[in-house]
Amino acid sequence: MALVVQKYGGSSVADASCIKRVAQRIVATKKAGNDVVVIVSAMGDTTDELLDLAEQVSPLPPGRELDMLLTSGERISMALLAMAIANLGHEARSFTGSQAGVITDSTHGKARIIDVTPSRIREALDRGHIAIVAGFQGVSQDTKDITTLGRGGSDTTAVALAAALEADVCEIYTDVDGIFTADPRIVRAAQQIPKISYDEMMEMAACGAKILHLRCVEYARRFHVPIHVRSSFSTKEGTWVVSDPYTEGTEMEQPIISGVAHDRSEAKITVVGVPDKVGEAAAIFKTLADAGINIDMIVQNVSAAATGRTDISFTLPTTDSSTALTALKRIQGDIAYESLLFDDQIGKVSLIGAGMRSHPGVTATFFAALADAGVNIEMISTSEIRISVIVEQDGVDTAVAAAHRAFDLDADQVSAVVYGGSGR
Amino acid sequence: MALVVQKYGGSSVADASCIKRVAQRIVATKKAGNDVVVIVSAMGDTTDELLDLAEQVSPLPPGRELDMLLTSGERISMALLAMAIANLGHEARSFTGSQAGVITDSTHGKARIIDVTPSRIREALDRGHIAIVAGFQGVSQDTKDITTLGRGGSDTTAVALAAALEADVCEIYTDVDGIFTADPRIVRAAQQIPKISYDEMMEMAACGAKILHLRCVEYARRFHVPIHVRSSFSTKEGTWVVSDPYTEGTEMEQPIISGVAHDRSEAKITVVGVPDKVGEAAAIFKTLADAGINIDMIVQNVSAAATGRTDISFTLPTTDSSTALTALKRIQGDIAYESLLFDDQIGKVSLIGAGMRSHPGVTATFFAALADAGVNIEMISTSEIRISVIVEQDGVDTAVAAAHRAFDLDADQVSAVVYGGSGR
Repeated sequence: MALVVQKYGGSSVADASCIKRVAQRIVATKKAGNDVVVIVSAMGDTTDELLDLAEQVSPLPPGRELDMLLTSGERISMALLAMAIANLGHEARSFTGSQAGVITDSTHGKARIIDVTPSRIREALDRGHIAIVAGFQGVSQDTKDITTLGRGGSDTTAVALAAALEADVCEIYTDVDGIFTADPRIVRAAQQIPKISYDEMMEMAACGAKILHLRCVEYARRFHVPIHVRSSFSTKEGTWVVSDPYTEGTEMEQPIISGVAHDRSEAKITVVGVPDKVGEAAAIFKTLADAGINIDMIVQNVSAAATGRTDISFTLPTTDSSTALTALKRIQGDIAYESLLFDDQIGKVSLIGAGMRSHPGVTATFFAALADAGVNIEMISTSEIRISVIVEQDGVDTAVAAAHRAFDLDADQVSAVVYGGSGR
Repeated sequence: MALVVQKYGGSSVADASCIKRVAQRIVATKKAGNDVVVIVSAMGDTTDELLDLAEQVSPLPPGRELDMLLTSGERISMALLAMAIANLGHEARSFTGSQAGVITDSTHGKARIIDVTPSRIREALDRGHIAIVAGFQGVSQDTKDITTLGRGGSDTTAVALAAALEADVCEIYTDVDGIFTADPRIVRAAQQIPKISYDEMMEMAACGAKILHLRCVEYARRFHVPIHVRSSFSTKEGTWVVSDPYTEGTEMEQPIISGVAHDRSEAKITVVGVPDKVGEAAAIFKTLADAGINIDMIVQNVSAAATGRTDISFTLPTTDSSTALTALKRIQGDIAYESLLFDDQIGKVSLIGAGMRSHPGVTATFFAALADAGVNIEMISTSEIRISVIVEQDGVDTAVAAAHRAFDLDADQVSAVVYGGSGR
């Protein structure tokens, strides 16, 4: 008998019939002999509707009260799900984040999990019940106030409970079959990845792959929780995210590149003509940090000897652009840079693969593929298992497709077409 | 400085603009130098919408999960109300029933309050905050599960918290100016009652006056909580419900009759031809009690000597009729009664007044008034401070008006008309 933690997102429980379908899936897992803990998000658009109500009442609602408001969404979905399971003849008990022992700090809106003490969940499991837990929420250790975990919160709840309960697997249900080698909407020959390491998945998430949130993968990695990303519309195996996918199974050789990710949500700012003196770059980035802006990539040109000035370019979330530009304009007098350039028509394309550690030719192959496809590289950044480039936004699709093909990630189109679902 | 507990019902917080209006009223009370604790119901139709969702998922939802679902309604309204108050520059903190220390038994759907331990509310007040508390809900002492208090639950929460906090007053806000001597829709000359005793108010509530629920008045009486029933649309004084209204103030002599209540929600069942033997009536009422039916009035005719049989009539909530009739049919073999008669076209008219203790002529005056008005009395029941009669439903309005006039409760129509609001 295994202990299975399952997480269903808002679209999986969007209405009564969706909830009934999810209930059947949960009961099937239970009937197969497993203990089951389910983490559920708020129904479909509930959170947006509640935010809309809040906006009607106050332009700047206090975080504590906004969290109190938003957490009612999961309370509704989890109670309905427990009812739907009861209606199938199985015992289910729903628990708020607080009842489930999800202890957080008191940063309303984006609280961090400090501890998980799921004694009531264990008790429910011991009695043979299915436990339904509200995702996205917890209770603050200091103030005992209700908190929310922010983006990716329900996935993080699922992984945190799986860790605390020492679950055999944390299943994250979504509307696709798992993690793909590239976005299938861009690369039709993209393939589902059977297994991927935490490190690679974290790079994928950080580089724009939207299926799993970075934070949940970080948590899973720290506590060695195996994640199984799969579709709520089929029973097919999805993608396993584990510590070391290539020693656990023997079915495949480690690929050089696991996937190609892309991200269109960043913009580029160039500070032109910065005096090439010690401390000027530091002053620029301190100003941005003080404004709460996360910088992604940075490039500093070689200083032109004639002028003693240099250009510094960096990328940041497009949504932070105006805050950043305002902050930079304020220090123009101190830094005495010449001007600011802004470009939100950029995109980031990233190759991720633990295998590139032992394959020094990856960068060359990647850049050659982009050059052949006519895509110009504006900025470059690398980690041990990732290469990212900034290109013009219109070139993102071409770049992703070219890289995918260059590293032999394309599915065997012929067999897929001729033999249908039986290929590969 | 006084401690004021205020309760606002669902219609007072039906939408964002209602919530803002209530927030202004609360802030005005705070600004007047009071500590303020607010109990709030779910917004308008929220509870019905949640019940509708539950019905779509399961025809027989478990009580625990239904309570979990329904309590999200107050969570929404209280968070929004706290935001609206913050938007007026005052600090407000919302608390669930559980956080407010409303401890109940574990009877889901109609839990009873066992204890109230409002330490977090006191703490909020000590810090100068306005405390907003979810009405209608608590947490079970044994199972730590969320419970709901059932009908009149928010009023009861308000009175219970007022008692635990030793508040100076519990203000119940509604859409009328207070308690009236009769339903103003029936008797245009009905007058607002400035003060009424707990005992009278309990009889009024039990006899169909809908402003306050019996249970909340019982609680207030036990803990000597002064209730002030008033309109959320004006700042006029409403009706005070207190221990002894006629010694506290000196402005008025005790009236014989405080008010005339009516109730159209009952039906009458007559068990015809019951053998006049010891234990037969007991068997009938035990059967009904086992079926969970609350009987109101009972009349047993004098046995006809010739047949040795008698008729037993009783009234009950119309909604329980079919359950009662089914239960009675099942015991027809044992009891050997002749037949059942059912009548849901009845109404109950009640005179309530602590003054009738010392005025023996009340019954005679009441019955004469009904006779003069051509209304036939079908059943009679009395307590020390109440006389109730069952009449045919079409005669209810006539009976109420006649009784109201007979006991000089009608407002002085002439002065009211000629001098407008300044009369009397």
